[in-house]
Amino acid sequence: MTRAVSLPVLDDASISDSPKEECGVVAIWNHPQAVHLGYLGLFALQHRGQEAAGLAASSNGKINSQRGQGLVSDVLTPDRLQLLDNYYNKDESSHPDTPPHKRGVIGHTRYSTAGGSGLENIQPLVENMFDGPIAIAHNGNLINANAWKHELSKRGQIFHTSSDTEVMVHLLAHPDQRNSHDPTAAMLQNLQGAFSLVILYKDRIEAARDPWGFRPLVLGELPDGSPAIASETVALDVMGATIIREIEPGEIVTLSDEGLTSRRFASPQAPLARCVFEHVYFANPASTVFGQNVLISRERFGAQLAIESPVDADFVMPMPDSGRSAANGYANQSGIPYREGIVPNRYVGRTFIKPTQEQRAAAVRLKLNVVSEIVKDKRVIIVDDSIVRGTTTREKMKQIREAGASEIHVRISCPPIISPCFFGVDFATPDQLIAHNKSVEEIRDYLGVDSLEFLSHEGMLDVMHDQESGYCTACFTGKYPIDPERPLACQVSAAY
Amino acid sequence: MTRAVSLPVLDDASISDSPKEECGVVAIWNHPQAVHLGYLGLFALQHRGQEAAGLAASSNGKINSQRGQGLVSDVLTPDRLQLLDNYYNKDESSHPDTPPHKRGVIGHTRYSTAGGSGLENIQPLVENMFDGPIAIAHNGNLINANAWKHELSKRGQIFHTSSDTEVMVHLLAHPDQRNSHDPTAAMLQNLQGAFSLVILYKDRIEAARDPWGFRPLVLGELPDGSPAIASETVALDVMGATIIREIEPGEIVTLSDEGLTSRRFASPQAPLARCVFEHVYFANPASTVFGQNVLISRERFGAQLAIESPVDADFVMPMPDSGRSAANGYANQSGIPYREGIVPNRYVGRTFIKPTQEQRAAAVRLKLNVVSEIVKDKRVIIVDDSIVRGTTTREKMKQIREAGASEIHVRISCPPIISPCFFGVDFATPDQLIAHNKSVEEIRDYLGVDSLEFLSHEGMLDVMHDQESGYCTACFTGKYPIDPERPLACQVSAAY
Amino acid sequence: MTRAVSLPVLDDASISDSPKEECGVVAIWNHPQAVHLGYLGLFALQHRGQEAAGLAASSNGKINSQRGQGLVSDVLTPDRLQLLDNYYNKDESSHPDTPPHKRGVIGHTRYSTAGGSGLENIQPLVENMFDGPIAIAHNGNLINANAWKHELSKRGQIFHTSSDTEVMVHLLAHPDQRNSHDPTAAMLQNLQGAFSLVILYKDRIEAARDPWGFRPLVLGELPDGSPAIASETVALDVMGATIIREIEPGEIVTLSDEGLTSRRFASPQAPLARCVFEHVYFANPASTVFGQNVLISRERFGAQLAIESPVDADFVMPMPDSGRSAANGYANQSGIPYREGIVPNRYVGRTFIKPTQEQRAAAVRLKLNVVSEIVKDKRVIIVDDSIVRGTTTREKMKQIREAGASEIHVRISCPPIISPCFFGVDFATPDQLIAHNKSVEEIRDYLGVDSLEFLSHEGMLDVMHDQESGYCTACFTGKYPIDPERPLACQVSAAY
Amino acid sequence: MTRAVSLPVLDDASISDSPKEECGVVAIWNHPQAVHLGYLGLFALQHRGQEAAGLAASSNGKINSQRGQGLVSDVLTPDRLQLLDNYYNKDESSHPDTPPHKRGVIGHTRYSTAGGSGLENIQPLVENMFDGPIAIAHNGNLINANAWKHELSKRGQIFHTSSDTEVMVHLLAHPDQRNSHDPTAAMLQNLQGAFSLVILYKDRIEAARDPWGFRPLVLGELPDGSPAIASETVALDVMGATIIREIEPGEIVTLSDEGLTSRRFASPQAPLARCVFEHVYFANPASTVFGQNVLISRERFGAQLAIESPVDADFVMPMPDSGRSAANGYANQSGIPYREGIVPNRYVGRTFIKPTQEQRAAAVRLKLNVVSEIVKDKRVIIVDDSIVRGTTTREKMKQIREAGASEIHVRISCPPIISPCFFGVDFATPDQLIAHNKSVEEIRDYLGVDSLEFLSHEGMLDVMHDQESGYCTACFTGKYPIDPERPLACQVSAAY
Repeated sequence: MTRAVSLPVLDDASISDSPKEECGVVAIWNHPQAVHLGYLGLFALQHRGQEAAGLAASSNGKINSQRGQGLVSDVLTPDRLQLLDNYYNKDESSHPDTPPHKRGVIGHTRYSTAGGSGLENIQPLVENMFDGPIAIAHNGNLINANAWKHELSKRGQIFHTSSDTEVMVHLLAHPDQRNSHDPTAAMLQNLQGAFSLVILYKDRIEAARDPWGFRPLVLGELPDGSPAIASETVALDVMGATIIREIEPGEIVTLSDEGLTSRRFASPQAPLARCVFEHVYFANPASTVFGQNVLISRERFGAQLAIESPVDADFVMPMPDSGRSAANGYANQSGIPYREGIVPNRYVGRTFIKPTQEQRAAAVRLKLNVVSEIVKDKRVIIVDDSIVRGTTTREKMKQIREAGASEIHVRISCPPIISPCFFGVDFATPDQLIAHNKSVEEIRDYLGVDSLEFLSHEGMLDVMHDQESGYCTACFTGKYPIDPERPLACQVSAAY
Repeated sequence: MTRAVSLPVLDDASISDSPKEECGVVAIWNHPQAVHLGYLGLFALQHRGQEAAGLAASSNGKINSQRGQGLVSDVLTPDRLQLLDNYYNKDESSHPDTPPHKRGVIGHTRYSTAGGSGLENIQPLVENMFDGPIAIAHNGNLINANAWKHELSKRGQIFHTSSDTEVMVHLLAHPDQRNSHDPTAAMLQNLQGAFSLVILYKDRIEAARDPWGFRPLVLGELPDGSPAIASETVALDVMGATIIREIEPGEIVTLSDEGLTSRRFASPQAPLARCVFEHVYFANPASTVFGQNVLISRERFGAQLAIESPVDADFVMPMPDSGRSAANGYANQSGIPYREGIVPNRYVGRTFIKPTQEQRAAAVRLKLNVVSEIVKDKRVIIVDDSIVRGTTTREKMKQIREAGASEIHVRISCPPIISPCFFGVDFATPDQLIAHNKSVEEIRDYLGVDSLEFLSHEGMLDVMHDQESGYCTACFTGKYPIDPERPLACQVSAAY
Repeated sequence: MTRAVSLPVLDDASISDSPKEECGVVAIWNHPQAVHLGYLGLFALQHRGQEAAGLAASSNGKINSQRGQGLVSDVLTPDRLQLLDNYYNKDESSHPDTPPHKRGVIGHTRYSTAGGSGLENIQPLVENMFDGPIAIAHNGNLINANAWKHELSKRGQIFHTSSDTEVMVHLLAHPDQRNSHDPTAAMLQNLQGAFSLVILYKDRIEAARDPWGFRPLVLGELPDGSPAIASETVALDVMGATIIREIEPGEIVTLSDEGLTSRRFASPQAPLARCVFEHVYFANPASTVFGQNVLISRERFGAQLAIESPVDADFVMPMPDSGRSAANGYANQSGIPYREGIVPNRYVGRTFIKPTQEQRAAAVRLKLNVVSEIVKDKRVIIVDDSIVRGTTTREKMKQIREAGASEIHVRISCPPIISPCFFGVDFATPDQLIAHNKSVEEIRDYLGVDSLEFLSHEGMLDVMHDQESGYCTACFTGKYPIDPERPLACQVSAAY
Repeated sequence: MTRAVSLPVLDDASISDSPKEECGVVAIWNHPQAVHLGYLGLFALQHRGQEAAGLAASSNGKINSQRGQGLVSDVLTPDRLQLLDNYYNKDESSHPDTPPHKRGVIGHTRYSTAGGSGLENIQPLVENMFDGPIAIAHNGNLINANAWKHELSKRGQIFHTSSDTEVMVHLLAHPDQRNSHDPTAAMLQNLQGAFSLVILYKDRIEAARDPWGFRPLVLGELPDGSPAIASETVALDVMGATIIREIEPGEIVTLSDEGLTSRRFASPQAPLARCVFEHVYFANPASTVFGQNVLISRERFGAQLAIESPVDADFVMPMPDSGRSAANGYANQSGIPYREGIVPNRYVGRTFIKPTQEQRAAAVRLKLNVVSEIVKDKRVIIVDDSIVRGTTTREKMKQIREAGASEIHVRISCPPIISPCFFGVDFATPDQLIAHNKSVEEIRDYLGVDSLEFLSHEGMLDVMHDQESGYCTACFTGKYPIDPERPLACQVSAAY
């Protein structure tokens, strides 16, 4: 007897056509429970990065941290949280000679976009400079990081990580910069690309957002008046904070015992380049991002799609969990009943065995069960949020066909993705992007479905209530707001 | 500065009003990939028990196993699977004196219902008896296990586990039983309660189901003709097997190199006592249980609820993920739009910190985000599958109210749960069951909602296409198919 | 370039010609620090078994334990000791209905002689019988264990371990035995072989030694008057106990709140069969075993060897650490200077890589460095305690020769080992014993040394101050005090 | 009943009066088995540092490493060695454009003397500089490290470790240095203190020793002609290498595919400051250090002590294991018999519980058993290598007295230690050094012994066959070869 059965195995990434997420950050100043609130905030941002997590606390002029690879709850165990909390809440200022106890916490959850997955890359980065410790947590990608690394290495600086973020530390450590009247601003002026970041100093937190506004960053207030910062509003919600406003593109907000202050290190770029993909895929549906609730955006993408690409069918069915809101919008707009007939296995994220290409079918079967009692002899509209590589979608369509569907109409709630992102989204390489290589008709044929339609670029921007000019839609158009091939020369800035 | 903020923490159980699940079993005879297929089967049954898992393989007259605490993918790592596979596929029968290589695999995923969570309780139990090794995997609860333990201990037998299942092993080990013409049947005739089980012998697998038919157990056929058994059809689907039929109440099916054979150890009880809660909550929606697809049952429970308890509202909203199918049914039946406005955090299952009662609100907030942009000033119908303790549901309702809903109408797709289960479901104790202590109106008041309705007992059974007599509905009625207070006396059976 | 250099690797066992040790036991009744004293006692008995360790504590009518694989300090970590101590010292007898708080501790350190190295074999074995829990810790080997296992399995008993010790539990659990007036004695009368053991009941400890007296077992008194038992006097010394006397062959001593009592379950066998190898190799040199200090025995073995087998040489050199005492005795008796020229690596015990035969030389070189500045052009007498396989000794001799010794005279402080042990010592199999297969002259030739002499049988017994008849010297003579081929038939004893 | 018994617990350090050891290094160029040979070398140097270990391999222009906390065998598991070996032996030079495959390995075993015990301090340090990777392994302490750290931080350099060694990396990374004709020499000229080190470049290894010659460093040749470097000759012995010579003070030796070359970066200091304590305590007795075998030095220290401080007694007894060689020398010189009566527990090194001062007696009892049958009513001479704090020695003496010795005469084979070391030995602080605070008579009184004598400074140097001027004896005299209070100013060197 031979081993004829292919071994069906999988992991989450391999059966997903979705891009990989990047990072989330949180910051809290002076709240007695800041360590635990930071944990909650990171937990709520877990969808922005599952590879590593960490919290850093400033207290009595020093900085300590707990960091590691894995999910927030794996890394920040009760014991480790307690250790950090003890450190944070120990007040040495009662000694007559010491200043008042200043304290703050920042946190980071990471999916590596630039920089490998090594331990040394786990954020917040904590470094000791000549005049004291700092910690940095950063969401986004710089396009001139490599140029700076080359330049600084040539000057004798030693880099320990492969992350963009370490460049910022080296720039901050330079004596001219340190001695300038605003070191944070001077450092940020040397950066090009996407960055929403928080820097923990011994006496304050500085939060900043790049002039293009690529990634979100919001400010809130805890019930006791302490300020808090997070990548998304859901994190502030979970901490029990009230949302105040977004950090603006080009703005630095300082959190300290003197309260909140704001200044600009650059003018906002006009037009802005806010990432539309945060609404399409990244951000938590419960978050309000760039002033608009994400779940409602997705319902409206679906409704718009129903207007643009109607089709007669027995019911609308979402690809769980990603297509659910858009499918709702499509169904309610079209009047076609909404039913779910694909059952996801909630444990698949924890599977580990790598599939070969042949095993993909088995892998998909393990992740999703199509209920044939629902789809048999039915005309179904399948709604999903995006298609990146297409391989997994194809397997899913095959399953639905095998379960007996008579017609399959696929509707995707964003335009075809044709170009890579250089600002924090880890899509596949261009040649792996199915829409980079194939027309919509070719993709339909590849998927083996009866019709396939994508949301139009205009339709998408209509939903965003905005002009194209305010959003980065480079992944759909190939038109980048900053030319990734031409980073700024690394010149020492005036202040530098 | 005092620590005024309560620390919001949680675990999955603590914020769920759902009962705990029990166990799932799989078995495969003589397939070369049986170890990996067993792994896939268990993976698909993960929802039936997340506490421990294991596989046992019979090969060359011996039995080996891999077992441990945790999820299937944590316990059955690639290394351990490979070790077991090597063992299973090593054929020593080429030696001239040895018989043909007979081999099979059984597996188990466990949530402890009886028996603590100790390592020794992890199944399959593997034991060496005088005439060889056996392994057992069992889903269900016996009501006469303690009586047998007392009796057998008095005779000098030593018990190493606190599980019901070990009783079966001791009964099987007794010389009279072993020497009877049908030891498995003789043993099963001594048991009372719920049991769907598989026994791995060196030369065969025997699968049996109690005469009342409490728990499901299905037979399938792999593409190469090898037989397979599982608790639910989804497990057979994932293995790539074709469903043949259910194991019948009172039946023993033997899988061996001689093919399949069937016999009865008892007549089916009339009326049967199939667990209706498998359809309400337990089973995977993609499974066909007791002859009917579970997802469709749940849609129909929702539709029936819309007929029984209509209400005017802006939209129907499911409690994710448990209420989604019933909410679909309710919406499509009533014509009221379906929208989702509660966003679950997919990572909460991994959280570990135990909440105090006061922290429950924060815990619920971490698990679920209500999107106020959706519910504000709206009349919403919330559909869920069941209410056990009610504490979590209350917090969820409070969140929805705080998000601005103008009216909240709760619809539950089963009747009130008033009595504990002795046949494999770990509800709370009676005084923890909210419907044991309160009327529907009192529960509505406790939840702080505008209306609350449960599906009627008749409505539920109508959906099941059956007479009440064919299902155990004791948790809703208090009428038990076997009196748990009066187990059979432990007499040695005729064959014993 | 080829990989010409053999990879030199090793483990401790592989470069040792020594037999493997068996087990050590301790017991303490009612001392408030019994858990920590038990830990210290086990620590002092670590040389008797490095594979696993455990402590069991009886308290309030129940028994709890901490056990695991590894060294005493690896298994019994501070956390685990504290847990067990909390359990042991928690007094529930203040409740009006409960009896006075009775409590005791037993411990075991193990090298497996019979029974594999599985977790289930780790002692103390803890079992629940019909009338309560017991724990057993046992040093020695039974020769009728397999016969009893066969018999009891046939009766339907289920064995979970492969150790001899479980037989005792099954015999104790039998109702007739339990109901006899002295269950411990009735059980022990069914055993044949070597056993020094302690049994922990809820209200007492019983310590017993087989009628042949194979293995040591001593009784002591702690400063507060609490009684303590251990395999060797060093363990009692470390606990701070005063040595009282040996447990006698055939005696049971009971430790309870009523004080010490003694009774016999059998007459001592005449002649006794005390293991002479405890003095040659096993026991800690600081212990007094069978009434005589072990280090002094070893010095005298060396002195006797100097009388029997003198040789002219530049100095006497011990094989560290095993030959040091005998080399001292030899040097002081002969007047030849004592020098150490072989330096042991104290970390080798932790090495793990298995050597192939060719790598043995490199392995030995890593374990021992011969100082050529000492041995070059010198006639050296090398003294060691025993030779089992000879392979390692050969490599060591080669090293000494390569370091430049002009003559090598080997003196071994016991007779040639020609037969296996069935009473607790894990020598190699007979054909691996070099003296089973070769004459002394052949061994000398194999070792490549100038002369080789063993201590005579008479000389050894002279040192023991005793007749041959009082010691088991079967490994040197092949004459066994009980025929291992003819165990007693398994008949139910009178009381049974 | 109260808890009257103190809990006797201990760790190795706490019951030792010995100083802590520092570090050992190894290096091998181009041998195919260099990774495994490096492992063996480190294993043989384990006595020089038990806190952390690591190997770094250069191959194909890159450097990879395996490092961690713990013993060599804990850190460098077979899996990790294999990974590093695969990396080291993978030859990418067959590609037409790549240069010949150059490869080498360096290793380090560490006890932290300066720099905490953090993971980032584990050596070899591996860093990427502008023109490629380097790794450094260093034995010794710099006295101007902190001055350089201050200076370099001020210039904007970021330090990640607290070790002296990182200073070297930053100096090497500076462009002027890198661009000098001999960067290694230019860097070394900036250092002051003790350093024996090996630097792994992509195309060579450079080994250097400070101009004072504080720490040993030896060069050897493997059977295939490959060069090897190690801190001590035992490491070369274990690798199977032939000893060639010491690296000279002020010398740099380069190992590359072009063979060995030597040059000086500084003139040797006259007088040299070779550490005499390597002979007294540190080095492995089997090593030849500074041209003389260590074990023979120790025998001679003992013999010299017998000449200087004779006493009538029944026997000479070593403090195991440290005093054995000197006790041998004393006994053979004096003609008084040598006997061992103190039995060490070989497992104590693995104990972990920290003793309080009161528990020290129990701790010592667990570590050492004095055999009263040997010492009772005897006049004993106890020989040990050194006394640092004296607390442990006092407990040992008390034990010997309690075991019945009628007279105790203590002889120490080095002079009293009165001053701390700044060149790599971690003694206690000055006020913890018993001889810093007490006269010899006061120490004798403190120890409670009948006589106490130390080896004279002259006697020690006589044994070393040398003038005082060639050795650093600052710990005995307080006269430091370099003033630790006055490090060189941090000026950029000519080449810098």
